[in-house]
Amino acid sequence: MILRALFYEYMITVNTKLVALLGMPLGHSLSPAMHNRAYREMGLNYCYLPIEVSAENLATVFAAMKKMNFAGCNITSPHKVAIIRLLDELDPLAATIGAVNTVQFKNGKAKGFNTDGAGFLRSLKEEAGVIPSGKRFLIFGSGGAARAIAFTLATEKAAQITLCNRTKEKAIALAAEINKEIRPCADTLEMKQATQCKYTIEADVLINATNIGMLPHNSVMPCPKTSICTHHTVIDIVYHPYKTAFLQAAEKKGAKIVHGLSMLIWQGAAAFTLFTGKKPVVSTMQKEIKQILL
Amino acid sequence: MILRALFYEYMITVNTKLVALLGMPLGHSLSPAMHNRAYREMGLNYCYLPIEVSAENLATVFAAMKKMNFAGCNITSPHKVAIIRLLDELDPLAATIGAVNTVQFKNGKAKGFNTDGAGFLRSLKEEAGVIPSGKRFLIFGSGGAARAIAFTLATEKAAQITLCNRTKEKAIALAAEINKEIRPCADTLEMKQATQCKYTIEADVLINATNIGMLPHNSVMPCPKTSICTHHTVIDIVYHPYKTAFLQAAEKKGAKIVHGLSMLIWQGAAAFTLFTGKKPVVSTMQKEIKQILL
Repeated sequence: MILRALFYEYMITVNTKLVALLGMPLGHSLSPAMHNRAYREMGLNYCYLPIEVSAENLATVFAAMKKMNFAGCNITSPHKVAIIRLLDELDPLAATIGAVNTVQFKNGKAKGFNTDGAGFLRSLKEEAGVIPSGKRFLIFGSGGAARAIAFTLATEKAAQITLCNRTKEKAIALAAEINKEIRPCADTLEMKQATQCKYTIEADVLINATNIGMLPHNSVMPCPKTSICTHHTVIDIVYHPYKTAFLQAAEKKGAKIVHGLSMLIWQGAAAFTLFTGKKPVVSTMQKEIKQILL
Repeated sequence: MILRALFYEYMITVNTKLVALLGMPLGHSLSPAMHNRAYREMGLNYCYLPIEVSAENLATVFAAMKKMNFAGCNITSPHKVAIIRLLDELDPLAATIGAVNTVQFKNGKAKGFNTDGAGFLRSLKEEAGVIPSGKRFLIFGSGGAARAIAFTLATEKAAQITLCNRTKEKAIALAAEINKEIRPCADTLEMKQATQCKYTIEADVLINATNIGMLPHNSVMPCPKTSICTHHTVIDIVYHPYKTAFLQAAEKKGAKIVHGLSMLIWQGAAAFTLFTGKKPVVSTMQKEIKQILL
């Protein structure tokens, strides 16, 4: 009877608010498990559905979702930029970043947000006690994740944001954009130089914002271990494996580390609040994801 | 741990096949509970979602569903006729009935079916052992349900189908259509005459195909009790209450009765097979619905 009651509680009815994850492919996404577990534990009549959709069909599916009982959706690769032209409203930070990972439906209108930056900030604070204001950051990468992180850090008054990317031109362009759009705090560093302590020693935080080190290529690092100093806080957006080679090397050096999973969870928590109006029990989301991954 | 395993088994992933119910309003529909319970008990990774959609938004939502991971959908009031122009293919019986209650998505194409007639036939057979061939039927009503039942009975070689409707013209038009489209077996009877045994005595089966007797108007009957003879089999499409005043009166007369719930369940079972390719465990569907209703 307890079983039965539990099933009923979470049974899908006409009052169930739906939340979608739009992207392609989605087979390995942890978001459905994380959100659905939190809905269940909090007794919210919500259901999170991963919906694989191609670029060609994105507009058709999105238009229909606005007419259905969806509270919102998460957007992931390859639609984070393409979704923007389908929105009715756009949060200013998401507009600056130029990418949307969360859409909130309200009164028939779709408003886009980017919670990747907020998730990054929160994980940095929760796991390492770091507040960006006045700090210096060295970011590896200049793609979507790097953009979200760098613009957010610039907005949060970071003292310096140094971008380091294999394709140097992308780093230069992104730094120029930050300096123009937010405030003059960004510069770039060549990959070769970022391997020497005399260049990285000024940074407080090293960030891997590339997918280097992701399984199955989990022995690779965004920079050599000689780049890491003991005083650094090191954060990796890669969460599979849980502790990347980069984080392992940092730990050996005695540096503080922040796991990518933490960022994933906190961006999800921020999206959860946009969908439900409530703060999730984050420990529940963490537990769920660790049970799947670890 | 058992609880946890059960939740996991039915957790929604990218491999979960979705099935929708499209209509408005859907608050009282029993289909989601019935289908989801059967999916669970059979260990099928399917999820049935009631989606309230207005006539205005039907085409937008339906177009998107074809691009998503939907195996099919059920269609209910007020879209059973309007859906037809949105289909790629149409089953011949559904075309004759002129209404679709089930859509199957296969290889990007939507094919429409009507399982209401099949559900009716099966409930008649299961609950009363009646096969239509050579039998005489008196049907109250000439709306959507009456159409589905009458065309199906004509196709199944019923000896006579007599239609009896308060708006006489609708009955005459439907009888003419059956005689033209299927074979000459249909006629009509005025409501006044249907109250006298000398007119109803020739019928083997009396059918209420109107919503007369539905809660909260559960004391009303489609015809007076003087219309019912002991040798009749009496079937009611109304299932709320479970045993209508019409069925109660029939039972008192000693007539065999068939509950509307049975028809609901068997039309659902036929749809289930179109969605999944499998026969459902019908006893599970029955149990679920009876637990909700009774």
